[in-house]
Amino acid sequence: ADVKKIAVIAGDGIGPEVVAETEKVMKRAEELFGYRFETEHALFGGIAIDEKGTPLPQETLDICRSADAVLLGAVGGPKWDNNPKELRPETGLLGIRKALGLFSNLRPAVVFDCLKDASTLKPEVLEGTDLIVVRELTGGIYFGEKFRRDTEQGQEAVDTCAYNVSEVERIVRQAFEIAQKRRKKLASVDKANVLETSRLWREVVIRIAPEYPDVELEHVLVDNCAMQLLRRPASFDVIVTENMFGDILSDEAAMLTGSIGMLSSASLGEGSFGLYEPVHGSAPDIAGQNLANPIATILSLALMFRMTFGYADAADSIEKAVSDVLNAGHRTGDIAVDKSKAIGTKEMGDLIVAAM
Amino acid sequence: ADVKKIAVIAGDGIGPEVVAETEKVMKRAEELFGYRFETEHALFGGIAIDEKGTPLPQETLDICRSADAVLLGAVGGPKWDNNPKELRPETGLLGIRKALGLFSNLRPAVVFDCLKDASTLKPEVLEGTDLIVVRELTGGIYFGEKFRRDTEQGQEAVDTCAYNVSEVERIVRQAFEIAQKRRKKLASVDKANVLETSRLWREVVIRIAPEYPDVELEHVLVDNCAMQLLRRPASFDVIVTENMFGDILSDEAAMLTGSIGMLSSASLGEGSFGLYEPVHGSAPDIAGQNLANPIATILSLALMFRMTFGYADAADSIEKAVSDVLNAGHRTGDIAVDKSKAIGTKEMGDLIVAAM
Ligand SMILES: CC(C)[C@H](C(=O)O)[C@@H](O)C(=O)O
Ligand SMILES: CC(C)[C@H](C(=O)O)[C@@H](O)C(=O)O
Repeated sequence: ADVKKIAVIAGDGIGPEVVAETEKVMKRAEELFGYRFETEHALFGGIAIDEKGTPLPQETLDICRSADAVLLGAVGGPKWDNNPKELRPETGLLGIRKALGLFSNLRPAVVFDCLKDASTLKPEVLEGTDLIVVRELTGGIYFGEKFRRDTEQGQEAVDTCAYNVSEVERIVRQAFEIAQKRRKKLASVDKANVLETSRLWREVVIRIAPEYPDVELEHVLVDNCAMQLLRRPASFDVIVTENMFGDILSDEAAMLTGSIGMLSSASLGEGSFGLYEPVHGSAPDIAGQNLANPIATILSLALMFRMTFGYADAADSIEKAVSDVLNAGHRTGDIAVDKSKAIGTKEMGDLIVAAM
Repeated sequence: ADVKKIAVIAGDGIGPEVVAETEKVMKRAEELFGYRFETEHALFGGIAIDEKGTPLPQETLDICRSADAVLLGAVGGPKWDNNPKELRPETGLLGIRKALGLFSNLRPAVVFDCLKDASTLKPEVLEGTDLIVVRELTGGIYFGEKFRRDTEQGQEAVDTCAYNVSEVERIVRQAFEIAQKRRKKLASVDKANVLETSRLWREVVIRIAPEYPDVELEHVLVDNCAMQLLRRPASFDVIVTENMFGDILSDEAAMLTGSIGMLSSASLGEGSFGLYEPVHGSAPDIAGQNLANPIATILSLALMFRMTFGYADAADSIEKAVSDVLNAGHRTGDIAVDKSKAIGTKEMGDLIVAAM
């Protein structure tokens, strides 16, 4: 088989640990299915600030650009939280999205059977919840002009939110296509009763919708969506929205599943290139103690196999191994009911590798 | 007693019905406590579009300006949803906020005992939830410059989000003061890791916090807040945030209580002037059928009595009457478990008047 190049960014906190387990899974996929992966590690986030003086070194970008896909652990931590903007992990995150053209962030929010009770929602409300948030990732207020100026009311800060027709069209088309492969329902979320960017957004959605006649479309205002996610989560299939709304709604959606420690995500650009990472953060409080749950990162690798490489067999094998191990009752501390029986990061990785 | 002038805006959908019951309660408060109210009705929203060709007629503004407080039912409905911007009810809503200088929107989210089970959250998670969202209402991306321009990627839409130091300071001070009268906890919500307006916001909060040493302050990123509201709703006391984030988070907070049909809100300016309205919408589907629940509007009047007039006795009497009527088992259709026993809008109003 041809060799696929994977840039591996372990990052901060529990990142290195969960990535190490995921690399074991990668190796096992090579053995089982004959695929070949070449990994190159790169510094990013807090550790890159410490070692290179910048959260996103040029070398890291070069490694990512020459790879077919990127696997990311987690970045950030209190150590860098009070740094000036240029020396903060988030700045690296925004930078890598823009530099790699990752305009689309896919965040599936599903309920894991073994975690049904972990949600703060009632089980009967949660029943059947399986949605995906498609968030625009390189536009909007995140990347618009920002500045300060003096006014008579004191200093003023300004952020600019801009979207052009092509930016909206590419993300919305992708969302329609994803919906076509799922339950064929798309909720486009905007604030068209207030924002000009939302009115443009809605115009584009309405214009291209007839090209996807098999997809049932609804327009939902962002405030209403924040409510409906709580009231009828199972009724959503694909939600598409702009960057800032997507940041808020995808976190709300993830949390309501109760499975946030198990959720994976993909950030995609043009073509098949993508960056894959767990939804959870770097959890500095438990870092380096073999306590972290590696499943979200391992499932992110499965997502990479499926979406970037088209390796459905390997992806299936990983996903099945994860559910077999969970069904057999194995749990890391974060998802264990009886904490005294919890297993470690490495043990969980080994069990999944063995179950593949 | 001196006469208080109340501008009454019935609005659209169920607005006129719930306002009519609230006016009965107002009269009863005059009889019981010797207060004197003079009401003047004004057209606003959809009905004003139909009758006057604009959602916010000058006459309505004049009536509000010469009043001590405004009572609003609800505005909007599908009939006007596809109108051009100038002829939409929301445009009137944004206009009246700006024209009356209502820079602060208070949305208490409490759980009514009789509605505990109506929430989609588990009762043990909800237990003790009693928070208030203080939303900045006349700044940010709602009121910044908006325009379209042509670019090589097609038409581009732009919204501008701006905040100056005074705008942030007045809302944050108000939030601190509210927190001082409650459980003394304030969560300031921003997106300081991305937005310049949020960085200014946070600087102001940090600068004035030492003046309120008795209030425990936390800074919460907006995406994290959307999660924490689900995970630990009872741990919040006062949440203060900018306009757009407040729109989303206050709706999420209201919905998680399960009591959205019962929640009141206040929009305040400088001094004691305020506009009071239920959190729920105009519910055109049940309008004119004596089906609507008038309690949220009646409780909005109680809020007006307390906040604008300092009539604590009348406010207490209304709130106690509402809870007595609910405890006696009376329910409108929206909150009735056994719908066949539901009472109408008027009957609910009469019962509350009788219980005062
Ligand atoms: C860290 C932050 C800049 C980032 C974002 O807002 O995009 C994060 O919240 C996310 O969702 O990936
Ligand atoms: C109708 C709309 C303009 C309004 C807002 O976004 O402020 C509404 O959602 C609200 O919260 O009062």
